[in-house]
Amino acid sequence: MTHGFGPVAPPDAQSRAAAEQRQAQLTKPGGALGRLEDLGNWVAACQGVCPPKQFERARVVVFAGDHGVARHGVSAYPSEVTAQMVANFLGGGAAVNALAAVAGATVRVADISVDADTDPSISKHKVRRASGSIDREDALTLEEVAAALAAGKVIADEEIDAGADLLIAGDMGIGNTTPATVLIATLTDKEPVAAVGRGTGVDDEGWARKVAAIRDGMRRARPSAKDPVDLLRVAAGADLAAITGFLAQAATRRTPVILDGVVVTAAALVAEDLAAGASAWWLAGHRSTEPAHKLALDHLRLDPLLDLNMRLGEGSGALTALPLLRAAVATLADMSTFAEAGVSTADPETASATELPDAPPSLRK
Amino acid sequence: MTHGFGPVAPPDAQSRAAAEQRQAQLTKPGGALGRLEDLGNWVAACQGVCPPKQFERARVVVFAGDHGVARHGVSAYPSEVTAQMVANFLGGGAAVNALAAVAGATVRVADISVDADTDPSISKHKVRRASGSIDREDALTLEEVAAALAAGKVIADEEIDAGADLLIAGDMGIGNTTPATVLIATLTDKEPVAAVGRGTGVDDEGWARKVAAIRDGMRRARPSAKDPVDLLRVAAGADLAAITGFLAQAATRRTPVILDGVVVTAAALVAEDLAAGASAWWLAGHRSTEPAHKLALDHLRLDPLLDLNMRLGEGSGALTALPLLRAAVATLADMSTFAEAGVSTADPETASATELPDAPPSLRK
Repeated sequence: MTHGFGPVAPPDAQSRAAAEQRQAQLTKPGGALGRLEDLGNWVAACQGVCPPKQFERARVVVFAGDHGVARHGVSAYPSEVTAQMVANFLGGGAAVNALAAVAGATVRVADISVDADTDPSISKHKVRRASGSIDREDALTLEEVAAALAAGKVIADEEIDAGADLLIAGDMGIGNTTPATVLIATLTDKEPVAAVGRGTGVDDEGWARKVAAIRDGMRRARPSAKDPVDLLRVAAGADLAAITGFLAQAATRRTPVILDGVVVTAAALVAEDLAAGASAWWLAGHRSTEPAHKLALDHLRLDPLLDLNMRLGEGSGALTALPLLRAAVATLADMSTFAEAGVSTADPETASATELPDAPPSLRK
Repeated sequence: MTHGFGPVAPPDAQSRAAAEQRQAQLTKPGGALGRLEDLGNWVAACQGVCPPKQFERARVVVFAGDHGVARHGVSAYPSEVTAQMVANFLGGGAAVNALAAVAGATVRVADISVDADTDPSISKHKVRRASGSIDREDALTLEEVAAALAAGKVIADEEIDAGADLLIAGDMGIGNTTPATVLIATLTDKEPVAAVGRGTGVDDEGWARKVAAIRDGMRRARPSAKDPVDLLRVAAGADLAAITGFLAQAATRRTPVILDGVVVTAAALVAEDLAAGASAWWLAGHRSTEPAHKLALDHLRLDPLLDLNMRLGEGSGALTALPLLRAAVATLADMSTFAEAGVSTADPETASATELPDAPPSLRK
């Protein structure tokens, strides 16, 4: 069952090659901009054009949903905070709003499974109120998984059809690092304690409860590890399934995405299983403090741009990384070549003809 | 001899404390924005106000100068490139121009010691044509050191008087990583081979020549290690001395600076010796691939924000980091508090009362 995603074609190799050639002609030593050069080349490949164009409509979609497991003491915050924060997003007072404003992005909120009534403008794609408590029951029915995947897919289509040239998925949901960690530990075959983090900042007793819930969730999830749709049903949640559909569809539609933290990256792991090759369209914006985030990024062979001890979600890490992508596009698109600027190139007598030992690694590991 | 710098007062502790308090009231778990929170608090302390104001006039000054040692095969590029790149900066075609445009900064170029005639608009503070080849002769006379330090000081004053609220020093000069490495290895007491990098991309034979030049330069520099002005005379160059004066004066004038790569950070080491406490006003934008850069940052106890394998200079690393500082200011200044947004705070029953194990480190090591 593919749920209508794909096939996912890779970013354009010809535009990437043209970008690599152009990097060598720009007025700087070859490779001197390090990972910015890789980033610029990747954007050119995603856009299928060299030089690439600066992003004109970078768009964040925050997927909000509650989780039954939050009733069992795995989070430092009560579930009511999900709906309160959704209202805060709409009022413009959250981190995602402040970060989007300075990064030149706009924010959309989608209530997928908040355990409260929210503004009708954001609840069109709502699947249910809160997902099941995955330590003891299924997160969703199969029909709900399909509805949530379709919601994410439709939202991606709506945004891309409206002109989005760069997408970011964000998350909001008290308790959501618990299903995210179950998904990641299951798909990367790790022990619970290697993957569990503090989420929003739970204390030692809460951490022990979270480990137990994740162990129970993983026991229920393991039989579905090879079937991404069934895995979403048993161990995810409607919000996570919607993010999965969003990420898979963005790749299908050849639109680059900056991944955020542990929740979005958990959905990305599932999306790659659902739409093979999708990860070529994703950039890892940052590494959060959640141990499972690193496991997921390693599994996807994505090397995060930033490591700033962030652990907020909402798309905050991806938005913090967005200006680096803009910097990469600006240098590749706007710098003069040696010929244009009348600058001498490296002396072949003393320049290294081969790749330097400190040559920048690719975006992939 | 203080050359008129200082005393350097620390950033304002009261504003920093107010920022820390405000961070705890904003609609996010405490510490969830990681290093962005530290950055915001630092800006508040530098500005002496909480919440801090977004930077309105971020200004880059690229200090250009040639180095006699470049005639001896230590670089992949010929010395003519310095003047050519200065023209490229003025024409807007270099990396620094592209990066400044997307980061919301403007660029000034100062010819301190280019070995050519440059546009009169940028050569007002010129000290000489090229500095001495530090492997065999002094870089400067004592009078030239004084003139270069004064040039940097005056340029900082001019920019701050014109409204600059954030300064970045950049460098341009073929061969300039050689004196920078001599300064750093001398002041951190390291062996040449532990500090020497490839600069713009020199080959193996050139690298060996560079190691030898640095060894010779260090032999000449060591007797002056305790006297920053004499060290500049023997082993730096007019451009490096001007950057030193610029950084020391920015701190004296309570203006925050983002440090760039190995050349600027070498000057920063000397500036801290010349104006003790100045480094509290500096942020390390990135870590470059030059080994000496890490040595200098460690010595200054500065923890770089980015690690993107960059090695260009010009202020490029600092400009790439500038949006992170804007993000830090935006979150601290523009987010709503829990009370303003009507969001519940953490449940004291399940929230960690103490600092989390993954709490963000400070800007300082």
